[in-house]
Amino acid sequence: MHFGRRVVGLFALIAIPSLSIAETVRWDDQVSTFELDNGMEVVVIEDHRAPVVVHMMWYRAGSADEKPGVSGVAHFLEHLLFKATDNMESGEFSKTVAANGGSDNAFTSYDYTAYFQRVAADRLDLMMQMEAERMVNLRLSEADILTEREVIIEERNQRTENDPSALFGEQASASLYLNHRYGVPIIGWRHEMETLGLQDALAYYKQYYAPNNAILIVAGDVTPDEVKELAMRHYAPLAANPDLPERARPQEPQHNAARRLEYKDPRVAQPYVSRTYLAPERDSGDQKAAAALMLGAALLGDGQTSFMKQKLEFEEKSAVYSTAYYRGTALDDTRFTTIVVPVPGVSLSEAEASMDRVLQEFMATPIDLEHLDRIKRNLRAQDIFAKDNVQGLANRYGRALTSGLTIKDILEWPDVVESVTEEDIKAALKDVLQERTSVTGWLTSGVEVSQ
Amino acid sequence: MHFGRRVVGLFALIAIPSLSIAETVRWDDQVSTFELDNGMEVVVIEDHRAPVVVHMMWYRAGSADEKPGVSGVAHFLEHLLFKATDNMESGEFSKTVAANGGSDNAFTSYDYTAYFQRVAADRLDLMMQMEAERMVNLRLSEADILTEREVIIEERNQRTENDPSALFGEQASASLYLNHRYGVPIIGWRHEMETLGLQDALAYYKQYYAPNNAILIVAGDVTPDEVKELAMRHYAPLAANPDLPERARPQEPQHNAARRLEYKDPRVAQPYVSRTYLAPERDSGDQKAAAALMLGAALLGDGQTSFMKQKLEFEEKSAVYSTAYYRGTALDDTRFTTIVVPVPGVSLSEAEASMDRVLQEFMATPIDLEHLDRIKRNLRAQDIFAKDNVQGLANRYGRALTSGLTIKDILEWPDVVESVTEEDIKAALKDVLQERTSVTGWLTSGVEVSQ
Repeated sequence: MHFGRRVVGLFALIAIPSLSIAETVRWDDQVSTFELDNGMEVVVIEDHRAPVVVHMMWYRAGSADEKPGVSGVAHFLEHLLFKATDNMESGEFSKTVAANGGSDNAFTSYDYTAYFQRVAADRLDLMMQMEAERMVNLRLSEADILTEREVIIEERNQRTENDPSALFGEQASASLYLNHRYGVPIIGWRHEMETLGLQDALAYYKQYYAPNNAILIVAGDVTPDEVKELAMRHYAPLAANPDLPERARPQEPQHNAARRLEYKDPRVAQPYVSRTYLAPERDSGDQKAAAALMLGAALLGDGQTSFMKQKLEFEEKSAVYSTAYYRGTALDDTRFTTIVVPVPGVSLSEAEASMDRVLQEFMATPIDLEHLDRIKRNLRAQDIFAKDNVQGLANRYGRALTSGLTIKDILEWPDVVESVTEEDIKAALKDVLQERTSVTGWLTSGVEVSQ
Repeated sequence: MHFGRRVVGLFALIAIPSLSIAETVRWDDQVSTFELDNGMEVVVIEDHRAPVVVHMMWYRAGSADEKPGVSGVAHFLEHLLFKATDNMESGEFSKTVAANGGSDNAFTSYDYTAYFQRVAADRLDLMMQMEAERMVNLRLSEADILTEREVIIEERNQRTENDPSALFGEQASASLYLNHRYGVPIIGWRHEMETLGLQDALAYYKQYYAPNNAILIVAGDVTPDEVKELAMRHYAPLAANPDLPERARPQEPQHNAARRLEYKDPRVAQPYVSRTYLAPERDSGDQKAAAALMLGAALLGDGQTSFMKQKLEFEEKSAVYSTAYYRGTALDDTRFTTIVVPVPGVSLSEAEASMDRVLQEFMATPIDLEHLDRIKRNLRAQDIFAKDNVQGLANRYGRALTSGLTIKDILEWPDVVESVTEEDIKAALKDVLQERTSVTGWLTSGVEVSQ
């Protein structure tokens, strides 16, 4: 292992070199970037310990970029990208990867869609050839639509319809977001999925799948020069989409009224209460509030020594589980969530009252600085270990870069986290823990009496 | 008055004549329709008692037809239609109407935008000339945008920001609708109104303002032949918009979880609780459920003898006001709402419990058939009196025709209402009064303790 623990801190202090087309910018011993003339950004993450590469194509387009009425089309298209292209048969992509000893998959979220293959380093050429092909030459048929629509609907059945907690989460998200499409499930509303057609998929494809909306990340046993040579061959010839729209989604209005919802489902074995607050995301160049919220969530609800768990699970013994979490990497306003799962015999009303009391106590109590230091130390360790997992690292870069952040933001993040003080955390939580921007949800079997 | 009370019933039974371009269809003594080659529908409502006409142009485009991110643009454009056109100066339209002794105005709702003038019958020619002009020749400047945007924001200040009940209603609507744009306020979210620009207004104008998306209603001292002659002169030359999109909005997903919200505002003098259920709208050819809901709302909460008022205001004396209402005329899923305003000393929690109890009691009690008959009799009387108010009648036709209904539906409505039975009402209410599709809202001053 040749990356010392001081590396991240060191490179975050270096002045950012000016970018020019196809000029490689070396950010640290591991990460380099360059950009193709057609606007495609390329990130290379080196790790020469094993002769393997992960080749990922990230599109700055997810479910929150869908038009109204076609929810699920981003994820639908992700499935359809494994169908035929001008020069490949349906299924040929994955078959070829497997025949070459690799594995491949794809995933869709609110802010991005990504495709990746893990293969021997000498197969990178082939991966790029195929990925470039399906970026622009997809050939969909009505038969593909019918077949794959069944697949995504079945996926929804498995993941959502059969899971009361997932159904509950959907309704809570839709209630939290009054205007933004983060309130619409990534997989789509069932009734809209059922009507997704060829034109819907093609419209999304033509709008968003283009080199100037893509980020190529290659991680593993490869050099920036090798990646550049292959990228010039396969991706540089692709034309940019001149009509790529500005990425501006409808934002939330003022939230004036706390919302509550109760989802009753006889399949619920373990009732719980959740509270979600609208929260700021990591903003490029201004990540401190997000770092403070991440640390606040960890202090509150992450690990056995966290404030909520100590109070509710160990002292009061009123909860079997409790947690707080915050998803900072997002393009637009995100969420800060707390959950309490009461022990049998404790009502959701009591659980919610406990949750409120613990949150208030936390805000009124000085932060345990040793606890905070321990969390920061763990995060630093995680950052260092992360450098050993290039696929994880590639994911981290992909998520951040498709969520409005820059390489500089990613590299600065550990220092921003390190610099967060007790006061920062309290101030950020005070801003976020406002009843009027919150949704409180009860998931119950329907047997328990409300209140 | 030459319209007997049997007329509506009679004509609803007549077979519908087949339509052909510009052929006038006479629906009863009062109402005639024809269609221009460019797709504009024309409705003439005759009333020769006074030498006055109301000239209305209705567009099948309202706030629910807006694109995400530009909420308020339908209403903004309504204001801008009084600015300059190729052949009129800014403000000239209304000045000309006034100079001719008339009055004019406009209004915007979820499903329509409408413009109207009330003038002496011999000025109809001039009204059509001007209305046709601004349908296609609007000339907006950046200065218009800046000026009028201030006006609509000030309108929002007056109507919404200064009215806790309106703010509360906005948040409740946004919480009720999980997917449909009925959840977005007609006037717009403030932060989106602030960024509305010239291109937003023009895009909406070009998409929706065209003869094939318009319904002309002329009511008053005029004959169908006279209207046709003028309409052929002024409106027939306008080209249809071949790119008019199909009017299909995103529909609601399954509602699985009852939602609640509480809006606290120190300006609130009179706290109250509201409950809104998602409810079916009047569907063309299938209006019975809507008629049953309308009668159900009347039985429950309209008038001193209604069930809620009797129980809550007179027997219990726990409420100073209570009501139930239902808006049936809408293109998509609409709302059924009940409200209870408790007397001082009664908490919202108690008021809500009373509301629930009264709803349950109503469902468990046979409907007072004399009460139902009285309501039907009143509605019949209103329908007859309505024929004397051509402006009101024109509004009724415009609302229905822009909400997916036909002339036949409008004429059949009284008979549908008449045919509704006690069982129909109970069945329709049972379908609608489902907790999981509801939003319960508390409007409080913030002083009262929740629960």
